[in-house]
Amino acid sequence: MKAIQVRAPGGLDKLEVVDLPDPGPPGPGEIRVALHACSLNFHDYAVARGFIPSADRRIPMADGAGVVDAVGEGVTDLKPGDNVVSLFSPDWQAGMPPSVNFGRVPGDGIDGYARETVVVPATWFTPIPKGWSHAEAAIIPTAGVTAWRALVTEGKIKAGDVVLTLGTGGVSIVGIQLAKAMGCIVVATTSSDAKIDRLRALGADHVINYKTVPDWGKKVVELTGGHGADHVLEAGGAGTLSQSIAALAMGGQIGLFGVLTGIEAPVNLHALMFRKGAIRGITVGSRADQLDMVRGLDGMGFKPVIDRSFPLEGIADAFAFEESGAHFGKIVLEW
Amino acid sequence: MKAIQVRAPGGLDKLEVVDLPDPGPPGPGEIRVALHACSLNFHDYAVARGFIPSADRRIPMADGAGVVDAVGEGVTDLKPGDNVVSLFSPDWQAGMPPSVNFGRVPGDGIDGYARETVVVPATWFTPIPKGWSHAEAAIIPTAGVTAWRALVTEGKIKAGDVVLTLGTGGVSIVGIQLAKAMGCIVVATTSSDAKIDRLRALGADHVINYKTVPDWGKKVVELTGGHGADHVLEAGGAGTLSQSIAALAMGGQIGLFGVLTGIEAPVNLHALMFRKGAIRGITVGSRADQLDMVRGLDGMGFKPVIDRSFPLEGIADAFAFEESGAHFGKIVLEW
Amino acid sequence: MKAIQVRAPGGLDKLEVVDLPDPGPPGPGEIRVALHACSLNFHDYAVARGFIPSADRRIPMADGAGVVDAVGEGVTDLKPGDNVVSLFSPDWQAGMPPSVNFGRVPGDGIDGYARETVVVPATWFTPIPKGWSHAEAAIIPTAGVTAWRALVTEGKIKAGDVVLTLGTGGVSIVGIQLAKAMGCIVVATTSSDAKIDRLRALGADHVINYKTVPDWGKKVVELTGGHGADHVLEAGGAGTLSQSIAALAMGGQIGLFGVLTGIEAPVNLHALMFRKGAIRGITVGSRADQLDMVRGLDGMGFKPVIDRSFPLEGIADAFAFEESGAHFGKIVLEW
Amino acid sequence: MKAIQVRAPGGLDKLEVVDLPDPGPPGPGEIRVALHACSLNFHDYAVARGFIPSADRRIPMADGAGVVDAVGEGVTDLKPGDNVVSLFSPDWQAGMPPSVNFGRVPGDGIDGYARETVVVPATWFTPIPKGWSHAEAAIIPTAGVTAWRALVTEGKIKAGDVVLTLGTGGVSIVGIQLAKAMGCIVVATTSSDAKIDRLRALGADHVINYKTVPDWGKKVVELTGGHGADHVLEAGGAGTLSQSIAALAMGGQIGLFGVLTGIEAPVNLHALMFRKGAIRGITVGSRADQLDMVRGLDGMGFKPVIDRSFPLEGIADAFAFEESGAHFGKIVLEW
Repeated sequence: MKAIQVRAPGGLDKLEVVDLPDPGPPGPGEIRVALHACSLNFHDYAVARGFIPSADRRIPMADGAGVVDAVGEGVTDLKPGDNVVSLFSPDWQAGMPPSVNFGRVPGDGIDGYARETVVVPATWFTPIPKGWSHAEAAIIPTAGVTAWRALVTEGKIKAGDVVLTLGTGGVSIVGIQLAKAMGCIVVATTSSDAKIDRLRALGADHVINYKTVPDWGKKVVELTGGHGADHVLEAGGAGTLSQSIAALAMGGQIGLFGVLTGIEAPVNLHALMFRKGAIRGITVGSRADQLDMVRGLDGMGFKPVIDRSFPLEGIADAFAFEESGAHFGKIVLEW
Repeated sequence: MKAIQVRAPGGLDKLEVVDLPDPGPPGPGEIRVALHACSLNFHDYAVARGFIPSADRRIPMADGAGVVDAVGEGVTDLKPGDNVVSLFSPDWQAGMPPSVNFGRVPGDGIDGYARETVVVPATWFTPIPKGWSHAEAAIIPTAGVTAWRALVTEGKIKAGDVVLTLGTGGVSIVGIQLAKAMGCIVVATTSSDAKIDRLRALGADHVINYKTVPDWGKKVVELTGGHGADHVLEAGGAGTLSQSIAALAMGGQIGLFGVLTGIEAPVNLHALMFRKGAIRGITVGSRADQLDMVRGLDGMGFKPVIDRSFPLEGIADAFAFEESGAHFGKIVLEW
Repeated sequence: MKAIQVRAPGGLDKLEVVDLPDPGPPGPGEIRVALHACSLNFHDYAVARGFIPSADRRIPMADGAGVVDAVGEGVTDLKPGDNVVSLFSPDWQAGMPPSVNFGRVPGDGIDGYARETVVVPATWFTPIPKGWSHAEAAIIPTAGVTAWRALVTEGKIKAGDVVLTLGTGGVSIVGIQLAKAMGCIVVATTSSDAKIDRLRALGADHVINYKTVPDWGKKVVELTGGHGADHVLEAGGAGTLSQSIAALAMGGQIGLFGVLTGIEAPVNLHALMFRKGAIRGITVGSRADQLDMVRGLDGMGFKPVIDRSFPLEGIADAFAFEESGAHFGKIVLEW
Repeated sequence: MKAIQVRAPGGLDKLEVVDLPDPGPPGPGEIRVALHACSLNFHDYAVARGFIPSADRRIPMADGAGVVDAVGEGVTDLKPGDNVVSLFSPDWQAGMPPSVNFGRVPGDGIDGYARETVVVPATWFTPIPKGWSHAEAAIIPTAGVTAWRALVTEGKIKAGDVVLTLGTGGVSIVGIQLAKAMGCIVVATTSSDAKIDRLRALGADHVINYKTVPDWGKKVVELTGGHGADHVLEAGGAGTLSQSIAALAMGGQIGLFGVLTGIEAPVNLHALMFRKGAIRGITVGSRADQLDMVRGLDGMGFKPVIDRSFPLEGIADAFAFEESGAHFGKIVLEW
């Protein structure tokens, strides 16, 4: 079985193609999955580069999609031939988890899905949306479920709500698609005039270049007739949170899932109180969230935005491309 | 000012065109609206025909849309020139009302909107969706807000939920449009094969002829892969409730807004408990619901289905057409 | 190991004390529990009497409490010495279950807890409230969790809500205690003047004898200053539902968990709609509900009402006592 | 009519007792209230001292309680003889307000209740809890409703939740009483060992001296068996928020209602995300919140903690006593 391993201490030149023993048949409660695709996320990149220290010879990649080729005793809700996709937090099945355990994220604390075959508990995977390829489905576990949990599970968006997205990362793009497919008004930000048309084509009602409009929070309020953002998909953290708060509608909420610009943020508490707003930490979601999202994708009917596909062996090139920041949409591995 | 009045004891031959004094300028907190359209609902029909007894010379019609032509002192959120539409329950502003008061429904306990001009408190109207005509907006107060409250305010629908609608009444049709625009899977029923294609064109994923499939509850479960209906827009009451319960998904809920087939229903409580389902009474909604729905319609972008338009003087013909049951979509008056 | 078995076709004379092999050590993910108490519920009685057909030699009793005496590999949240209590629906861990499966209820579809020792998955038990005996804790899985799910999980009761309970069954009594401990106003009904003082002593603010006040729904509204019941713990079904609906406050909800008076109920849909009320089927609850309830009981500080305790061998006498209806509070087995 | 006015620019020596004309009879929709008590809050103090600039001759005090002595035309839910208490935000009736308008808070943007008689719209007051004096009721509009909205309306507390309160201000004290009366586990902080016993007497399960335990966030987690705080009543702002976040349970939420220690807070976003926690701005609440709270207080049965009462003319002494920080519970004016 072909697989990728990250040699300590990490680095794009430390990604090795290796041949590992076949994992054998599934035990009770387990499934065996022939994997065919992964998607790249910032978290995977941080492990691959060694920014997040991991074990030597860790198999990277949290998001894996493929076909069930065998099921163990007692598995009833999946069967051979089913197309399936993995979970970011395999121990988080429903509700709120008793504790955070990044030590159990595939491709970080445990081996991930950059390999041809895996045997895991059946509860670690879910079905994929109807008509989606494995590469398309591979965007769900990290980027997709983060957007779903922030907007739907926690945010409870409804038609007419104003949703603000920051930049063109994977969560933001699927967030725009999802919000539009549920009847929301979307305001998107970007630092690149070149991306404005692509964001509009995805459905964004308004796009703001945050470099040329540094007080973009106020601009969001103006563009929405004084209403402001009912929901913010906050990717930036310290560098953007003040403007996200300034953008809020009365009772608006910020789903904080990323801290790309810093983890220690100066927050203007008066501004938050004034708007009766909320900041909520989001770290992906549960299996129940993912099952709901897959059903939601069946209903909404859109397809994700894939920028470029690489073969499994091209994983280092794929991360280098991600590093360049030139992409719009997800980068995937397919084999 | 031209107006319509219903002479006691009601009947389509008791609808008179009359000339009434102009209502004069708006007082403090009031607006004056030049009305241009009404929509017909079963409730209006029941008053016009005298099934619901009302005062002699009652001005009928709960749903009125038009243009603000003057505002009284202290009115700040509406201004002359604004396109506006009325409320079904003018005293129900937000939350849950302290009591039901049908004695205050326009066109029933108080005069309605089949007239050229009205002066009422500003809180009795709301803006209309962008780009909608007065006739289109006139479908909102009764049919629209009923569907919105059942599905969104109370039902909290999300993408991927299965929504079941019964028949082709005004609430069902706007319910189908609304559910599809929020990413739901829609199953619709009808007694007419001729309407199947029109329901599909509106977005229904599955359509069942309930005459040829009398156990349509079970059929809903089959068509949705064993899942069943997360939400039912229940229009029928006694004659349909058993099948609606049989159609329920685990934890599904029935929004009961109509009792066309009878008000005393034999309910199989075991079937309801088995599914952990709920039946909830819905009687239109609040001004807050209507404001939310208007924003929602701005985001969703669909237009309502209007079957036929009559002039104000043609009100008896309009009700006769409604009585025939030949329509698909709303019947409106425009002037 | 001593145990009780129900011989087919059931009957109080079919309850046998038997000696079974010790279940051995727990496997991976399992715990071994030394059981010391069970509580009697109507469901257990129906199995014992054969009203609910079950396998020959079924070990009865859904509710079992005891002490963990060994844990298998991988069990981290329970340890030897922990006092624990069982679940009514061992497969329902959180959220809404994918399907109803009474075939998996202990003492019904699978063996229950009328035995000295059991080995089961660790997820089939939870801790018990601090300071509660095993007999007290044994009231939680069926009666306790039903009241909790109806009032707290689904009902979301808050201080000041009016809660109506029917009769003096196990769910009603714990419901009264729970509602009072969360600051609610409680109205209780009974058919026995002798029980009125006991219900008041438990905290009921108002008690109605439903035999002498047959239109007790209206009486609930009067006693609460015209407000009515925000929540009803509906035990009766067909014979009581009309009055429960008549008792409802605007937006009130009925948690229907029992159908002692019949399963086919004539429901006045207009009365339900008029109050914008809801009827929701309740069938016990999930492990997450039970964990929440145990924490809640730690905070609320009350103790359950135990009427009489029997030894394990006295199970037939215990059920005969239950059959007599003379009890007020739970009947338990202790050994 | 006797009243108090604050002369510009504010200061305890600028509080004047004046004689004003009687306000006359109530107009349509209005009530006339014979006021008998006010309670002191930090906001009133800030106006009196001139920290919040206000108009010259402003009548201070946001919280006023008394007896209705006349009602205008159309007022149906209040009648002469009713004991009533005012609202902090008279324009915020229900739901979420369209905008913040501190310019409409009595005693700040408009005249308040330090006077013998007032005529205002009937919707500006609510009934008081049964058996409460006017002085007791006067703690509801600011301190009471803030605690209710944070814990009940937004926090949706249930029995067993862990509630953390900071210090012994008015909101914290009523928050402790309210949380205990709904079955929560309460952890309180104080800087004074002398207050520990009083906090325990109020029901606090655990009390931490935050001066001697500077990392009190971690201590909250330890004292609750590793669970942490499900809800924090955050009074301090910049100086306490880091520890409040450290105290959070998984999914815990912080109701931020005060910024006594600073408005610009450095927030550790990773710590918030790690716990999937939320920070929500709270600014008192709506009339619907106050009506719910009054009903809740009827159910919960506790009485508020009043430290000392002053006559209306003693208002400057009362504020000086508040300034000293020696009080435990509310300071009130009664006349």
